[in-house]
Amino acid sequence: MDEIITLDYGSGGLRTAQLIEEILVPAFRNPALEVLGDGAVLPKPESALVFSTDSFVVTPWKFPGGDIGKLAVCGTVNDVCMAGGKPLYLSLSCILEEGFCMEDFREIVASIARTAKAVGVQVVTGDTKVVERGHGDGIYLNTAGIGVLRAPGLSKDAIRPGDAVLVSGSVGCHGAAVLFARGEIPFAGSLSSDCQPLQELSAAALDAGGVRVLRDPTRGGVATTLSEFVEHSALSIELDETAIPVDPQVEAACALLGLDPLYSACEGRMLAVTAPETAEAVLQAMRRTPGGEGAVCIGRVTQSHPGHVVLRTAAGGSRLLGKLSGAQLPRIC
Amino acid sequence: MDEIITLDYGSGGLRTAQLIEEILVPAFRNPALEVLGDGAVLPKPESALVFSTDSFVVTPWKFPGGDIGKLAVCGTVNDVCMAGGKPLYLSLSCILEEGFCMEDFREIVASIARTAKAVGVQVVTGDTKVVERGHGDGIYLNTAGIGVLRAPGLSKDAIRPGDAVLVSGSVGCHGAAVLFARGEIPFAGSLSSDCQPLQELSAAALDAGGVRVLRDPTRGGVATTLSEFVEHSALSIELDETAIPVDPQVEAACALLGLDPLYSACEGRMLAVTAPETAEAVLQAMRRTPGGEGAVCIGRVTQSHPGHVVLRTAAGGSRLLGKLSGAQLPRIC
Repeated sequence: MDEIITLDYGSGGLRTAQLIEEILVPAFRNPALEVLGDGAVLPKPESALVFSTDSFVVTPWKFPGGDIGKLAVCGTVNDVCMAGGKPLYLSLSCILEEGFCMEDFREIVASIARTAKAVGVQVVTGDTKVVERGHGDGIYLNTAGIGVLRAPGLSKDAIRPGDAVLVSGSVGCHGAAVLFARGEIPFAGSLSSDCQPLQELSAAALDAGGVRVLRDPTRGGVATTLSEFVEHSALSIELDETAIPVDPQVEAACALLGLDPLYSACEGRMLAVTAPETAEAVLQAMRRTPGGEGAVCIGRVTQSHPGHVVLRTAAGGSRLLGKLSGAQLPRIC
Repeated sequence: MDEIITLDYGSGGLRTAQLIEEILVPAFRNPALEVLGDGAVLPKPESALVFSTDSFVVTPWKFPGGDIGKLAVCGTVNDVCMAGGKPLYLSLSCILEEGFCMEDFREIVASIARTAKAVGVQVVTGDTKVVERGHGDGIYLNTAGIGVLRAPGLSKDAIRPGDAVLVSGSVGCHGAAVLFARGEIPFAGSLSSDCQPLQELSAAALDAGGVRVLRDPTRGGVATTLSEFVEHSALSIELDETAIPVDPQVEAACALLGLDPLYSACEGRMLAVTAPETAEAVLQAMRRTPGGEGAVCIGRVTQSHPGHVVLRTAAGGSRLLGKLSGAQLPRIC
């Protein structure tokens, strides 16, 4: 095998077969994949399905706490979980740029395989394309995920006044970690992406009961996600700034660049809106689950500012938070 | 809305929401999509699943007979069909390059919607990313498809000596049409991509009975696909060159560029290997179905050259056809 990706590896011929047989199939081994048909045949599911997809164009492809491969598994797995599903199967599609290092590709494939194994999902079908130098950026990935529905009815429309707004840990770490990896922040410290799969955490929260809606605050961060929950509705969300966990490193990085941690992406945090009577139980369930130790209640659903998110600041004032406008952090996922 | 795609449209914030709400949702309207959750919730399927994915990087994005949008639907729909599935749902993920024309994006989305409607599949979930100028090529698409299994057991391992090899129409049109669109061929004539969905044609063939395996000969063409059927096996495929339909325009285009139509991609042709006793019935069923009018038998499965495809030439000689080596036609899909 060559040391770099050439256009031949996207031909659909001998080189493509080599990539599949020597790197991809050995990494993901499972019966559905090994048939190498045009599509994977999967057993009849026991319930309704959840289906999601994401493309990943993060630059650089490696950052503290993760890489594009880990992100490609977590991103889609988490979307399936947030929609109430238990993820089972992934597709994987790679758009490689001519000249990309074969060793880096192997490392990314290994990261995908490791993360998928940890989550318990199988990569069952895939595709590889190669574009000429100057028409990509090393590697872009796409994953699509199929899960079975374990919690029907999750919806922002189920949110009611008095509901609690919970977050599973400190916010904005992923965005800051990618900026550090780009050399835009002069200090590292303990700065690390929160990139992690949320299947256990979402299952724990759902089992505790009373969950209205789940969402992972990726692009646009916590502020954008919560804004989407209440826009066009008669409800508002009031956040207590002092309750929102932000790592000091992330706070410092954002301050340096004039960014707001509430708009910085997470890739392994979960927002849950729950009925008031189960909020404490959901919080305790999240705290007992790996990745949710730092779960806290950050606010309440009210009717004070219909359609808006209001931040009660540490100084005693308040300001409205809208959706992210402009591209605060391009290509962070 | 701006006239060109800017990085803001990939932010996950206001502009991304605008793209979704003003272009994507109106084009694809369906209840699963309109919830705009992290994933689509779909009814419990009646049988086993077929799951497939492809990314599309064709250049230019428009060519005689199709465009990247039509291709993105047909490519994945056809993969689901070839694996024995009836396609039901698609995901759609776009990687847009900063500066791409908004009007072209609208045109591509309309083409996706039109093709999906014709096939009877729903686009139920999606994603949009934007990369900086110089890190893409206008637009790349990914689709993943879910279908229900209608024909279990299709496999190249089911092929037996004496089986017939059928093709649904003339070969290599798609590859030649893309080369024409690139200006690499100085004449057009009736040159047009065969890009079309194969769900009716595959259903007709399967209903006729005795089908061992189906495959659409995309990248690598007919020669590569048939080579994959017999490699590592005790069987060979003997093709009759005079029986293989090649449009005169495609023949001339390939001759001019030193290419072989048997390695040029199709995007709407189907190869079927069938039991000898049902071959005629399958052929007649294909010919009665739109898109299969030109179906013919092009060869037989034998044991004369284990693991190989042998072409019996018009001149009375013979030559072995292997998988495509090198990238004959980069970025044709």
